[in-house]
Amino acid sequence: MSDVSWSDAEKEIAQTAFEKAYGREIAVLIQEVRAQATSLSELEDLWRLHDFLSTRRHDVDGKYDYRYSMLVFVFSRLVKEGWLNLDELAGLEESKLAKIAALTRM
Amino acid sequence: MSDVSWSDAEKEIAQTAFEKAYGREIAVLIQEVRAQATSLSELEDLWRLHDFLSTRRHDVDGKYDYRYSMLVFVFSRLVKEGWLNLDELAGLEESKLAKIAALTRM
Repeated sequence: MSDVSWSDAEKEIAQTAFEKAYGREIAVLIQEVRAQATSLSELEDLWRLHDFLSTRRHDVDGKYDYRYSMLVFVFSRLVKEGWLNLDELAGLEESKLAKIAALTRM
Repeated sequence: MSDVSWSDAEKEIAQTAFEKAYGREIAVLIQEVRAQATSLSELEDLWRLHDFLSTRRHDVDGKYDYRYSMLVFVFSRLVKEGWLNLDELAGLEESKLAKIAALTRM
């Protein structure tokens, strides 16, 4: 299981990539919430914002799982969703990169 | 139980007062959410906003209960919280007004 064995160099690459994706997604989320908040005019809009935050919170909490046994799946999802480029993972073992790339095509 | 018997004229006064309080509270709530949204800068702020909306939604949903058997309690709470003035209920039966006023002092 090479997925769960990460060298120090790989851990550093993983950490950086993880934080980059996280930062990007949160920045966009904050923008979205600000935009929704600007156009609030009635109660329904408030509750729509609340529902939106509930969904996104659940989603973000579940997605950013920094366990080494999960990282290959986490990264493939982040690439698929556009929060990360595959080349930002350069330096990881070939087998991990291949697996991540394969998963993004599923 | 005069609380549950409302004349047509009283119903109209109640409806108007209810909507006034509701409109005021929602307007302030929207302002608060907009202000919080403007100062969002990190994920924690988003989740704080989410928690805030969860609490307020629960609160508002529970509070605005337009059953005639509940209105005396609803109005006393709205007066207590400052969303309504007692004199906006003028025209209701004396016994209801007295009860509402007494409850606001509890």
